Amino acid sequence: MTAGAPKTCLVVTEKAFAAPAVKAIEGVFADAGYACQKIENYKEASDLYAKLEEVKPDALIVRSDKMTPEVYDKYSGIRIIVRAGAGVDTIDLKGASERDIVVMNTPGQNSNAVAELAFGMMLTNARNHYDGTSGYELKDKTLSLYGYGQVARNMHRIAKAFNMTVKAYDPFLSKEQIEVDGAIAVDSVEALFDGVQFVSLHIPSTEKTNKSINKELLLKMSKNGVLINTARAEVVDEAGLVEAFGERADLAYISDVAPMEKGVFDSLGKRAFVTAKKMGAQTSEANNNAGIAAAKQIVAFFEQGDAKFQVNKPGQTF
Amino acid sequence: MTAGAPKTCLVVTEKAFAAPAVKAIEGVFADAGYACQKIENYKEASDLYAKLEEVKPDALIVRSDKMTPEVYDKYSGIRIIVRAGAGVDTIDLKGASERDIVVMNTPGQNSNAVAELAFGMMLTNARNHYDGTSGYELKDKTLSLYGYGQVARNMHRIAKAFNMTVKAYDPFLSKEQIEVDGAIAVDSVEALFDGVQFVSLHIPSTEKTNKSINKELLLKMSKNGVLINTARAEVVDEAGLVEAFGERADLAYISDVAPMEKGVFDSLGKRAFVTAKKMGAQTSEANNNAGIAAAKQIVAFFEQGDAKFQVNKPGQTF
Repeated sequence: MTAGAPKTCLVVTEKAFAAPAVKAIEGVFADAGYACQKIENYKEASDLYAKLEEVKPDALIVRSDKMTPEVYDKYSGIRIIVRAGAGVDTIDLKGASERDIVVMNTPGQNSNAVAELAFGMMLTNARNHYDGTSGYELKDKTLSLYGYGQVARNMHRIAKAFNMTVKAYDPFLSKEQIEVDGAIAVDSVEALFDGVQFVSLHIPSTEKTNKSINKELLLKMSKNGVLINTARAEVVDEAGLVEAFGERADLAYISDVAPMEKGVFDSLGKRAFVTAKKMGAQTSEANNNAGIAAAKQIVAFFEQGDAKFQVNKPGQTF
Repeated sequence: MTAGAPKTCLVVTEKAFAAPAVKAIEGVFADAGYACQKIENYKEASDLYAKLEEVKPDALIVRSDKMTPEVYDKYSGIRIIVRAGAGVDTIDLKGASERDIVVMNTPGQNSNAVAELAFGMMLTNARNHYDGTSGYELKDKTLSLYGYGQVARNMHRIAKAFNMTVKAYDPFLSKEQIEVDGAIAVDSVEALFDGVQFVSLHIPSTEKTNKSINKELLLKMSKNGVLINTARAEVVDEAGLVEAFGERADLAYISDVAPMEKGVFDSLGKRAFVTAKKMGAQTSEANNNAGIAAAKQIVAFFEQGDAKFQVNKPGQTF
């Protein structure tokens, strides 16, 4: 790799970016003196293969496009593939690593989208789905954030404007790291729930977290307690939630994840307010931002050797 | 009136305040050394009459209770009636003025409730009513406020957290008065709409404003333009809105006021997102705040002669 040598990049989108995003991506590459080609809305893998042979790209930007060893072998000069978005389950990481292809994603570009969704649903729940009856305000209430990553930080920023008190707990962050923006660090999961009205989950699904949000925690919440889940269905003990809701008619569940057990919340009516399909990250801005971030990461990789967002280790074979 | 003499206040609520509000009201009067009695959830005017004759109150706090000359004449010592809330159309102002009774309301106590409702509906619209499809974010968009009173100021505060740019126009305020919080003052109604995505109305219904929000203004809005009306139905030219929406499929209308012409927006589906019944001010907090404000205004009136929120002029007969 010669630093500064002009590169050729190919935007591979089975489902094309919005026009402004494409323009912005082209702008990033133009500024770097790179060539930018694209293949949009293609129907067959063979169309992509032909394009790869024609363009001979150094770098690819992809979305949910399937990246396979067949793709990698169409042009052996591919050095980097960046997924514009978070999920890389459509990319064969092992095959990429075997060929020394760097794979990156663009984390955090959808975190504002998720936080805005959560607040929209919190307000909708607080105002009884706009049915004309008297509700309550978010102002001066407390919001607890379990996990303090990008989405949680955006929630904190928005919560401040509603004059909410924000508590946070993240087992991987120090008190100082949490309190830098003004959130109050607490030192246990229990403290997030105890007497608090809103608790929002921002934790991965692991052996330790699965089913960890249980009846006991939910019953600790204040009047009109609301659990918000834009993370993973697995972390909630669904049977425990239904039991807690049976004992406390004031509790509500807001969720952007389909339950593990289909229909488990049907008896709760609007108290279980679940999106029709996971959509927190689904905004035109999040998609566009991810595309622009992908282009910038490609330039930074070639120009400065920056591999910060690499998801496969060099030589890693999984 | 002897300043500092202990007074007797009667809370008159056909529909009672929530218990915490009553407690807070009693606290305000106790601190002032006043007696506080109450008549809650009464069924007949005659029950109220009997209570007035029994308690002989110097002051009344009321909600939507009907205040008539019959009420005023049950005890001639009533000096002040404070409506916990904004609307005084249930109070006979002429009869009160004729008897030198001061009538006040408690403006501004519900302005946060209205602003939160508007943002909830804006987010719900932006995210397609949580149907699982891709929407857009409020972040980095522009919000114009037509009229810059208490509700608009609360909208500005919340909008800042969404990183929105806020423009405002109020014919009764100077550029300096508007810009003190950081909003951008513009000098015409047209400038509020021109290329802007969100325009929120905070104007009264007057001869000049009625039907002033018309097709021409709406067509000036940017892509995905949203008109927000938590004010008055009269100010919108409803036929003009329907015409504009016919020409521009991207426009949306969010409203907490029933249309003047029943059914006029039916053809627009969810693009006209209207609450089931005006509810912007309907939160437990707004109702409680209004009750507490009413108690404080009564004490300030007797102790300092403060009549700032009086809605009937002394001797005014309408």
